[in-house]
Amino acid sequence: MPLPDALFARLREIFPDDALAIRETERRAFARDNSRYEQLPEAVVFPTSHEQVEVLVRACREHRVPLTARGGGTSSTGAAVPAAGAVVASFIRMDRILHIAPDDRLAVVQPGVTNEALQQALAPHGFFWAPDPGSAPWCTVGGNLACNAGGPRAVKYGATRDNVLGLRAVAGTGAGFVAGTHTTKDSTGYDLTRLLVGSEGTLALVTEATLKLTPRPPVVRSLRATYRDTASAAQAVARIMAQPVTPAALEFMDALALKLARDHAPDADVPQAGALLLIEVDGTPETVGFAQDAVARAARGEGLVALDIAADAGENAALWAARKALSFAQRTVTEHKINEDVAVPVSRLPALVDGAQALAAKHAVPLVCFGHAGNGNLHVNLLPRDVDEIERAYAALPELFALVLALGGTLSGEHGIGLVKREFMPLALEPATLGLMRDIKAAFDPDGILNPGKLLP
Amino acid sequence: MPLPDALFARLREIFPDDALAIRETERRAFARDNSRYEQLPEAVVFPTSHEQVEVLVRACREHRVPLTARGGGTSSTGAAVPAAGAVVASFIRMDRILHIAPDDRLAVVQPGVTNEALQQALAPHGFFWAPDPGSAPWCTVGGNLACNAGGPRAVKYGATRDNVLGLRAVAGTGAGFVAGTHTTKDSTGYDLTRLLVGSEGTLALVTEATLKLTPRPPVVRSLRATYRDTASAAQAVARIMAQPVTPAALEFMDALALKLARDHAPDADVPQAGALLLIEVDGTPETVGFAQDAVARAARGEGLVALDIAADAGENAALWAARKALSFAQRTVTEHKINEDVAVPVSRLPALVDGAQALAAKHAVPLVCFGHAGNGNLHVNLLPRDVDEIERAYAALPELFALVLALGGTLSGEHGIGLVKREFMPLALEPATLGLMRDIKAAFDPDGILNPGKLLP
Repeated sequence: MPLPDALFARLREIFPDDALAIRETERRAFARDNSRYEQLPEAVVFPTSHEQVEVLVRACREHRVPLTARGGGTSSTGAAVPAAGAVVASFIRMDRILHIAPDDRLAVVQPGVTNEALQQALAPHGFFWAPDPGSAPWCTVGGNLACNAGGPRAVKYGATRDNVLGLRAVAGTGAGFVAGTHTTKDSTGYDLTRLLVGSEGTLALVTEATLKLTPRPPVVRSLRATYRDTASAAQAVARIMAQPVTPAALEFMDALALKLARDHAPDADVPQAGALLLIEVDGTPETVGFAQDAVARAARGEGLVALDIAADAGENAALWAARKALSFAQRTVTEHKINEDVAVPVSRLPALVDGAQALAAKHAVPLVCFGHAGNGNLHVNLLPRDVDEIERAYAALPELFALVLALGGTLSGEHGIGLVKREFMPLALEPATLGLMRDIKAAFDPDGILNPGKLLP
Repeated sequence: MPLPDALFARLREIFPDDALAIRETERRAFARDNSRYEQLPEAVVFPTSHEQVEVLVRACREHRVPLTARGGGTSSTGAAVPAAGAVVASFIRMDRILHIAPDDRLAVVQPGVTNEALQQALAPHGFFWAPDPGSAPWCTVGGNLACNAGGPRAVKYGATRDNVLGLRAVAGTGAGFVAGTHTTKDSTGYDLTRLLVGSEGTLALVTEATLKLTPRPPVVRSLRATYRDTASAAQAVARIMAQPVTPAALEFMDALALKLARDHAPDADVPQAGALLLIEVDGTPETVGFAQDAVARAARGEGLVALDIAADAGENAALWAARKALSFAQRTVTEHKINEDVAVPVSRLPALVDGAQALAAKHAVPLVCFGHAGNGNLHVNLLPRDVDEIERAYAALPELFALVLALGGTLSGEHGIGLVKREFMPLALEPATLGLMRDIKAAFDPDGILNPGKLLP
């Protein structure tokens, strides 16, 4: 399905030669993201201005050609994989930090800046931007906006949607528009800003973002608690979240995740236990000890096996070794990891972990549970090692999602829907809700050219 | 413009006699809110269930009759004043707190519960809901959702939109739907929840809300700082917001607000100064002193006249006496207060206060500036005392809004648009943005029956 000649000619007018990739070898790098999907785009363009994006969208709309925006390509849902016959707009050349205003607690950036580059630019001002996905060195702010990225810090500081003040964007109509404000409170009309966050490039292409900044606490201290079983750890999570010192991270690992980490890194001092919590508190030098004490008190209780409290940054790192070992360990088990990111109310974590382990036994597929317990957001990772296990793993997925929804949870906490969970959306959302989402899609993108086939079933 | 007979008959079928007000004396109480607008509704109904609201909306839609939702009627924008020929749906009988889940940091409530009743129910669990508007004893959660209500605490804990997880509602089509989740992270489709917050009853009627709770810090301490001039106070606000201890309130009063409070309450120890900041910090008994010290360090600087630091709850109250006196003092000046709630980036506060005072001088109308400085959200209150001053005050308003927008600000920080700022929306939002808002309105409410004439110009 090659592009219409007239659109090709138009793209050549809009973009200089070095901002338009046509050869297959060049396009190949934009066919995949971090999912198992792949589709070669017909052309890749590299816009450098809002105005160029407006012209691009209008041209694609005129020819009814699909257009997929792309940042770092780290999505695990296929959200960055183009439709057949599509143009990909890579925002990696719109990577400027336009303005940092510490007094106003905001930064204005282009969408192609990486999360890590932004954090590095903010650090000298004493600020950070809350979203801290594991892919921070490679993923872009635009991608974080597209999937409402989170990370460990979200438990205290919120995810992407909670940390955006305004956007400049181009709708699927080709119309550029500004949403939101440069202020931290706003009651002026409908909230288009947070509607675009998490919309996976299906409503509009973001060309500029005004981000809410948070002052960086000077000191961080970790705690590591092991428990007899998942239920005891989940009770501790609920106790920790019910007291006034909200941790800056509250990460969970189940027994199988611990075993995997221990087998992979025998020297990393990974404890043997039914479940583990890694907890971070932050504050000033005078107060961080009290915060550590408060969280330690809440972590103690029925089923606690051991509680280690770091006294300095070196000890912090030692306590997190188990979590770091796990990431590498999973890769040694399989290259076919199925990485889910379901979320349930915190009180339902034990039921989620028990149910997931029962599914793993039933379908005979290795499975580990770990992740952001303070938000009830667990990575339930299936680790199939061969073709048969891959088949059984995909057969287990619908049952996993049914379990999550029965527990009052949601399909995705921070990765989004993309291609991989699209067919499950009718399980999570009733027809009236999906109908309103389709009507909103039609309002922004009447010809359905923006990232078609993603998010909505 | 009386209701069609068929609709009247239908309302009698849907609602029992004691849930349908028809006599003018009964309807009179639902004609006004806290603005200067007034319009008698043709009927007032008191739903008690989601299902009843669905049937109600379908009936009004069938007859193309406007329907305005109403909570406590405390809006200052006319958002709760019905259109001519309308039905008002009062939610005061849907006031139940359905579920409080401390482990999950959430509460599920009906929209008619007052903010204060909710806070009282949460207190024994050690939690609060962040929005704390001055009208808390009378305003409802449904009204807070409608206008994205804030209050002093929003500087640390966010406004309504930041503290809602999910909603059940009925769109203008008559279709009931569920939006959002019971989890604190969600990347599952478009964010209809936060789109409804601030939509002033123009998209859907909320019948149930899942609210995000915050653990209540056990100790609160106040500070009071006076400054030579507004610029010095604004510099202090920026310093306070740039360090890691975010205050739980950061309120500003200008020199005229102080004079008014002092004249009205000579015994309240209201200081004489160019500007005043009232600051609250919260924490545990062990840490609150350090928080107070950190904020005090940031409050000190060029232009500081005096800094008072409360040692206990009694001293807290004494420091806030000036702010409390101001509310009463304004009422003694005039009953025609024009209550604005513009917001600007924090760094532009001095320009806003200076510009507002210049407008007051030019138009010869008394004006005070005070409010939520940490969010750049000031109440610029015009206090005209007679017909001439009222006329001049309304003449000054467009210039005030033009100033706010020129400073990168927004028309409303927490009150909303309603009727009073509707005509100014095209100054704040470009045609493409307003066009998308209209398209969203059409998607939810194709016949335009929900609270017509509000928010959108």
